Amino acid sequence: MSRYPLLDSVAAPQQVHHFSLAQMEQLALEVRQFLIDSVSGTGGHFSSNLGTVELTVGLMHHFDFLVDRIVWDVGHQAYPFKILTGRKDRFPTLRKHNGLSGFLKRDESVYDHFGAGHASTSISAALGMAKARDLMGQDFTSIAVIGDGSMTAGMAFEGLNQAGFLETRKFMVILNDNDMSINPNVGSLQGYLNQMINGQYYNRWRDRIEHAIKTIPVASVSRRLAKVAKWSEESFKRIAVPGLLFEDLGFRYLGPVNGHDVAAVLRALGEAKERMEEGPVLLHVQTKKGYGYAPAVKDPLKWHGVTAFDAEAGEIIKAAPDPAKPVTPSYTSIFGNTLSELARKDEKIVAITAAMLDGTGLNIFQKAHPDRCFDVGIAEQHAVTFAAGLACQGMRPVVAIYSTFLQRGFDQVLHDVCLQNLPVTFCMDRGGIVGADGPTHHGLYDLSYLRCMPNIVIMAPKDENELRQMLFTAIYSNRPAAIRYPRGNALGVPLQDPVAALPIGKGELLREGADLLLVAVGTLVNTAQDLAERLAGEGISCAVVNARFVKPLDEELLSHWVHRTHGVVAMEEGCAPGGFTGAVAEFMADRGLRQPLLRCAVPDHIVHHGDQALLMDEEGLSPRALLDRVREFHRKASGIIEA
Amino acid sequence: MSRYPLLDSVAAPQQVHHFSLAQMEQLALEVRQFLIDSVSGTGGHFSSNLGTVELTVGLMHHFDFLVDRIVWDVGHQAYPFKILTGRKDRFPTLRKHNGLSGFLKRDESVYDHFGAGHASTSISAALGMAKARDLMGQDFTSIAVIGDGSMTAGMAFEGLNQAGFLETRKFMVILNDNDMSINPNVGSLQGYLNQMINGQYYNRWRDRIEHAIKTIPVASVSRRLAKVAKWSEESFKRIAVPGLLFEDLGFRYLGPVNGHDVAAVLRALGEAKERMEEGPVLLHVQTKKGYGYAPAVKDPLKWHGVTAFDAEAGEIIKAAPDPAKPVTPSYTSIFGNTLSELARKDEKIVAITAAMLDGTGLNIFQKAHPDRCFDVGIAEQHAVTFAAGLACQGMRPVVAIYSTFLQRGFDQVLHDVCLQNLPVTFCMDRGGIVGADGPTHHGLYDLSYLRCMPNIVIMAPKDENELRQMLFTAIYSNRPAAIRYPRGNALGVPLQDPVAALPIGKGELLREGADLLLVAVGTLVNTAQDLAERLAGEGISCAVVNARFVKPLDEELLSHWVHRTHGVVAMEEGCAPGGFTGAVAEFMADRGLRQPLLRCAVPDHIVHHGDQALLMDEEGLSPRALLDRVREFHRKASGIIEA
Repeated sequence: MSRYPLLDSVAAPQQVHHFSLAQMEQLALEVRQFLIDSVSGTGGHFSSNLGTVELTVGLMHHFDFLVDRIVWDVGHQAYPFKILTGRKDRFPTLRKHNGLSGFLKRDESVYDHFGAGHASTSISAALGMAKARDLMGQDFTSIAVIGDGSMTAGMAFEGLNQAGFLETRKFMVILNDNDMSINPNVGSLQGYLNQMINGQYYNRWRDRIEHAIKTIPVASVSRRLAKVAKWSEESFKRIAVPGLLFEDLGFRYLGPVNGHDVAAVLRALGEAKERMEEGPVLLHVQTKKGYGYAPAVKDPLKWHGVTAFDAEAGEIIKAAPDPAKPVTPSYTSIFGNTLSELARKDEKIVAITAAMLDGTGLNIFQKAHPDRCFDVGIAEQHAVTFAAGLACQGMRPVVAIYSTFLQRGFDQVLHDVCLQNLPVTFCMDRGGIVGADGPTHHGLYDLSYLRCMPNIVIMAPKDENELRQMLFTAIYSNRPAAIRYPRGNALGVPLQDPVAALPIGKGELLREGADLLLVAVGTLVNTAQDLAERLAGEGISCAVVNARFVKPLDEELLSHWVHRTHGVVAMEEGCAPGGFTGAVAEFMADRGLRQPLLRCAVPDHIVHHGDQALLMDEEGLSPRALLDRVREFHRKASGIIEA
Repeated sequence: MSRYPLLDSVAAPQQVHHFSLAQMEQLALEVRQFLIDSVSGTGGHFSSNLGTVELTVGLMHHFDFLVDRIVWDVGHQAYPFKILTGRKDRFPTLRKHNGLSGFLKRDESVYDHFGAGHASTSISAALGMAKARDLMGQDFTSIAVIGDGSMTAGMAFEGLNQAGFLETRKFMVILNDNDMSINPNVGSLQGYLNQMINGQYYNRWRDRIEHAIKTIPVASVSRRLAKVAKWSEESFKRIAVPGLLFEDLGFRYLGPVNGHDVAAVLRALGEAKERMEEGPVLLHVQTKKGYGYAPAVKDPLKWHGVTAFDAEAGEIIKAAPDPAKPVTPSYTSIFGNTLSELARKDEKIVAITAAMLDGTGLNIFQKAHPDRCFDVGIAEQHAVTFAAGLACQGMRPVVAIYSTFLQRGFDQVLHDVCLQNLPVTFCMDRGGIVGADGPTHHGLYDLSYLRCMPNIVIMAPKDENELRQMLFTAIYSNRPAAIRYPRGNALGVPLQDPVAALPIGKGELLREGADLLLVAVGTLVNTAQDLAERLAGEGISCAVVNARFVKPLDEELLSHWVHRTHGVVAMEEGCAPGGFTGAVAEFMADRGLRQPLLRCAVPDHIVHHGDQALLMDEEGLSPRALLDRVREFHRKASGIIEA
């Protein structure tokens, strides 16, 4: 017999409209059980999804998302929503290539009204939907569900600010307050939310006090006191109503509500529906990441995103070590350790991140140098300009943010750091193709969008030793510098100690050759070496250059070898327009080097259209296709040069 | 005799520490007079600077900015600061090439601690300076001065959120509240600030009420009332103190203060100094844009940025019309009118801007279609994703933001619009070199940073008729599309009516030729035609292609003409790395086209270093240098092809 009899019976979410409270409580239990059973098999985001089960059931009861709109911020808390909108059976394919996305995706379901992956976009998007509705004379409700972590991003504030101003009806922001972004949440907003929750006793007092005022025999005391009493009523309203910050921005604040009490959630949503007739509502729901699964409640950070686990034992399954593949340290840990080590000798080194302490390895740095580590919350824009301010005073700030999330700070990197030529180092973890998180998280654009900025040095290491060297080089370069490196384990090469600087703008010749020049950067340097080895066996002699610097390019070294070969193969794990291979094309044109050039990069539209990529797709590079392609290129190139 | 005897005597701002109140009042009068006299001659930002005179004098009295740090948000209100920090005599060169910058610039003065041009960076930068101070064991005050308009940007909120959380001492945010961004300010925050100001009577009542409570003979009334009275005190604090929003974020709020009353400003700054010992202070100063110059008070928008004017008459001097150069409409007005016209026929067209109604020409649209025009305030991130939400519901949103400011929405354009392939049109006014506003405002990066995004169509018109066609094309392309066009007057060509769509990805052959292919986009198409004409006279025959589309390139047309010529000259008014000419280099490499390519673009470092730019500098293009360069290129290219 199924473990989820009621859930199995839900063919369409509209059925939940007619469920009784008891049924909805049962449904919540089954959804949670399904989540545990399913994610323990596939891995995926976990604790955040356990936190939204009851809220999702409540939303399904009160709204019809074929008509009403809902935008789940980020989307990694929307598994219950996916389960209840006809995608339960696809959960075994979760986060697999061509499988169910770990986030929402407009082309995955009619219920996915807005896709995301980056935080804090939901209020703006849902507000846009609400205004479209008003302009078109339609009638539905538009809802944004946003975590307290996402609320720290300025973009969320921008959305609130306009929503309150427009007095948008039938528009609701649900603040899913679990006291966390991925790491425990920071910022004064969090303090404010906690105060509100601790301040709940105001609510209990409110009635008694209002009653007291009303029953005072006003005539019996002075006229002055009567005035005071009138004032009091207004004042009490202010002190008694938590959420004034939101009220000040034009919202009707409701809550806080226990997000795991189905009855309470239903009541609150019902009240919200009424209040929304007057204008925008902010509903404050308190949830617990990991609720209903003890190990995840105990350590929600560890259980935020998991691989497969043993649900009974509460233990994450570790892949058996492959003796052929010794475990190597991650780039992330190498970064964290190296930065800590450098900071021991240099008091001016400070580190900044945006809610990614663990993900970037700065947790290591934080332990060693707590005073010099700043987690600003999900606030990449501020992180970058805060670092610029530190740099102005002579500190050596290192900003560690995933490649994809640094996009949020694009203008700050350009306008505040690069135009002013300030010595800030950007360390972009998760550069290139990231795997299961998919298109919104790929770090494919960094080399392109940074390369247009003045003054910046851009590097990508071929291994972890080079990452250390580049970090050292960047910190002491006295100018803006960026290093991008991939997710996952490094190569296991020996680490040079003490770490030394690399000469800026100088590449590394790894192999001499007479037929082709292979020039690669970052993860593709080893691919290039393997390729050269392979081609050597076929009698094709390749020079191999590790560019190290995407900007400035080592034009001297490259020119030298371009002149000595028949053709150039440039390789990067980044998007084809404007990146490293684009830089090589520009350099060759500008220098009048007319050898044929084969660019090996991620094609423009892969992340969306899944176009046939000749050399690289979301799964990575196909060595076989690469070999064939380069062999063919060589044949043509030597023909051209001989002719 | 000088009109500014006291001001003339101020050789160093430190002298102001010892000034009497009367002297400071006199100094303020003279600074204002100097501003009027000087800006009436040179033009420049005006009303914002008239608003900060007294505040600046007060700051100079209380602080020493050789030691203390100050970050002026944007910087276009810092002329009084420049005047008082030794730059008075350079004001005749204001905003001229190699003259005094219209903003702050770190390499212009030791008093300029942080440069800007874009809004809302000041809190983050000043906070970074304050934390650097704490880490280095130094002792000074760090101040951010930010307008209420800039406060609507999320970045400002991110900075406040961390500053309050860190409880940073000797750190102050001065909110320069003039009820304006450039256009009248919008958003619920503005309503809140107004409420606070209108709520000033609370302050007058507060003392009386507190007194009333204290003098109530408590024993004579019930015990219940005693409790109420105690509650009242706390409640009154909440109701009586405006600025609770800031208090909730961890700031000590002071104000509002009349920013044109020198004595009041001095008192408030003195109190702020004391309160800053406990933690971060927000000082709310009310000022009037244009204060002290009646025409500017009356119309601060008109007088925000001005050309030279007749100070006596209060009239902006219009250049005498040059009969040789008939006045043509601006690109901005063509855009505003065309969009209004299209929207008359299509109810789904909506327009969004970020505090740039007048600057983008959307004021025209707003008059015609007020319901469909959204000015979200300085909040580019929200503007973009709000548009994405509108697009999801079937509207046809057009986002009009200056090229340089759209940088702030980079991630939203990429993550929310392009990855989801949503039909949002971006109209980027002020593309290319913008002149007097300088490096922070040049629209040089757009073609590079947009080109890496999937699904987007990128266009640049050669004239205003093409702008109309591109706008129509973009709106009905059913995908993300961007159009970039320059500041200033269009060419005066006839307008095709009704406007029709252009085929996406198709360029325009303007001239056939056998020696060189000139391929240009946007403003440089006419330059290319002139060049071809000139070279024709020298016996060099040039094909000229107007690319129209930066993405997708018309590879077919270009290939055709590349094959029929000896060399290619690609031209754009954008930064050299990764832009249009980069796209041409990539396309030629990818297609195996080995003709020589000369790229004519803005060199990488011009905006900062003023490198010798062979073909283009901040003044624009030198036709003479271009001609010489292309002639030389042709000589070499034909040599190559003949050899």
